[in-house]
Amino acid sequence: MALERTRVDAKKLVNFSTRALQRLGVSEEDAQITARILVSADLRGVESHGIVSLVPFYVRGIQGGRINAKPKMKVCSQAPSTATMDGDQGLGFVIGHHAMMEAIHRAETTGAGFIAVRNSTHFAAAAGYAMMALEHNMIGMAMTNPIPEVVAPGSTKPAVGTNPLAVAVPADKKPPFVLDMATSVVAAGKLRSAVREGTSIPVGWAIDKEGKPLTDPAKRVRGEGGLLPLGGTPKLGSYKGFGLGVLVEILCGVLSGSSASILRGATISTGHFFGALRIDSFLPLENFKKSMDEMIEAFEALPKLPGVKKIYAAGGYEAEIEKDRKANGIPLNAKVVEELQELAKELGIEYDL
Amino acid sequence: MALERTRVDAKKLVNFSTRALQRLGVSEEDAQITARILVSADLRGVESHGIVSLVPFYVRGIQGGRINAKPKMKVCSQAPSTATMDGDQGLGFVIGHHAMMEAIHRAETTGAGFIAVRNSTHFAAAAGYAMMALEHNMIGMAMTNPIPEVVAPGSTKPAVGTNPLAVAVPADKKPPFVLDMATSVVAAGKLRSAVREGTSIPVGWAIDKEGKPLTDPAKRVRGEGGLLPLGGTPKLGSYKGFGLGVLVEILCGVLSGSSASILRGATISTGHFFGALRIDSFLPLENFKKSMDEMIEAFEALPKLPGVKKIYAAGGYEAEIEKDRKANGIPLNAKVVEELQELAKELGIEYDL
Repeated sequence: MALERTRVDAKKLVNFSTRALQRLGVSEEDAQITARILVSADLRGVESHGIVSLVPFYVRGIQGGRINAKPKMKVCSQAPSTATMDGDQGLGFVIGHHAMMEAIHRAETTGAGFIAVRNSTHFAAAAGYAMMALEHNMIGMAMTNPIPEVVAPGSTKPAVGTNPLAVAVPADKKPPFVLDMATSVVAAGKLRSAVREGTSIPVGWAIDKEGKPLTDPAKRVRGEGGLLPLGGTPKLGSYKGFGLGVLVEILCGVLSGSSASILRGATISTGHFFGALRIDSFLPLENFKKSMDEMIEAFEALPKLPGVKKIYAAGGYEAEIEKDRKANGIPLNAKVVEELQELAKELGIEYDL
Repeated sequence: MALERTRVDAKKLVNFSTRALQRLGVSEEDAQITARILVSADLRGVESHGIVSLVPFYVRGIQGGRINAKPKMKVCSQAPSTATMDGDQGLGFVIGHHAMMEAIHRAETTGAGFIAVRNSTHFAAAAGYAMMALEHNMIGMAMTNPIPEVVAPGSTKPAVGTNPLAVAVPADKKPPFVLDMATSVVAAGKLRSAVREGTSIPVGWAIDKEGKPLTDPAKRVRGEGGLLPLGGTPKLGSYKGFGLGVLVEILCGVLSGSSASILRGATISTGHFFGALRIDSFLPLENFKKSMDEMIEAFEALPKLPGVKKIYAAGGYEAEIEKDRKANGIPLNAKVVEELQELAKELGIEYDL
């Protein structure tokens, strides 16, 4: 797997991406925010939401006018613990970062902060925002409602987005609990990977327009059939996955004054929702962190099925990857390296990775 | 199905249950709170969490000293939007009701309110608390972490409770969105029903101590094997269901200063977590409710698979049941009627259902 891969230093990758975005008219601060969040996904092994999207999603998005390089974000309404913000079609990273900081500031004062965001664009991995709460000793959460790709139980047409939700919770000596999950059986990126690699997908991930299992992802037709909600079938609880997906639509789409994705039409405008809870407004921080460690250790001590090396709480596996990649660099495949080299030429910036 | 069932008026059932609980030393107010929440589950068709549990769970719990009939609840710590409360081993309904009201009061002032509860007992259906937010034009949420019954992916021993989470959101003309879901594939009650009825259960609900599918629920041994987390298998996303289960453990167990259920030992002490978000601190209420209706109508207009009559958002089906049961009474089966009649005799109260 690592054979054709080049290890690239994370800081250099952040700097390179920052300079590229600045060339497109993004301010230095906004470019840094974006590059840092993007590369943080690669560091944690979530490559589908990392640097691989820099050129096709974000660079081309700005060049094509779908993403506003110089947004004027604003607060539309607010109370001591809540607010609604408008992202002015800027990079989702930028409004996402500022909205999460607003949630954290509010939680510092009142114990809780919740921010709904309208008129934003794709913000990559939700965990990147939820995890901002960790250094403030808070529980953080983040979610977003992209385009509809997931069917409702009993239907064959997409009703909700893959609608990821992320929650990050600090522990003491153990890595933080970081759950970042699409509310569908799998994220859309897994189907795109299978198409690229020419492989089939398991029964239970997606259906076609007749409701039959879709196993050849290349045969997928946008808007006909779709991904299945977590649970897969009604008998195994797919109405729960669908319910979670609708909840994310409500918080990101309806509560932000934006729109549920099913009603959005042909726009890349996206909603987000961010939250922070200050732990020491509930109980002493050291008690909380100690209890988190004890719980995680109890999970690790559970009996394991043959072939299972370790039982992880969410985020534990990604923390191990991050440790390696911070020390040894992020492995990039040849195609991505080539794309970044071409970008450097196109924008007239130095390629120094 | 309805053949051997007696229809009973909901108000009469609340009054009867109130009188029964008062006989056990519960105050009139606390008894009314408990009876109302219990019967509200029956009204919505969630019979597993309704009056069927009055005698075995709550009456016997108080008589056996496991539930404190006269708890001294207290607030342990607080900030403008958050608090931790102690239920003093009282009825989960009573501390649940007061904690949810605390969340609502805080959200009135600051926009958001979140309350963690320790030292409580079983509180029946989580939706009963989340739905209290509806008449205040808020989004409500409630969750709880009962005894461990759900395995971690890769293990065969229970690691977390079935850990239900409920969210209620008001709409305008449409019924409210009410999601109330165990984070396991199925709630534990479905296995208990199958045992009572002598039926097998589908592959994908539970495993035995060797990790093999458990299809005869009578063969289940407490603590060995267990229910599967939502998703079922790692390939179909069971780490997501497990992650949600752990999240509920964190909010109800760790953040409340109680304990994750895996560390709790042999006690019925339970934690809860409640939240409220005031909608008009984000956007005008009428805009929100109109958008909720539009989203639900878009779901209802989706193409349907053969045999599917209607696509529901969460809570839509239960609202139809509630309408019928409010008008025509709650169907109770002969066994429950008999149990309530015996209870009346035992406690020396009138049976008037």
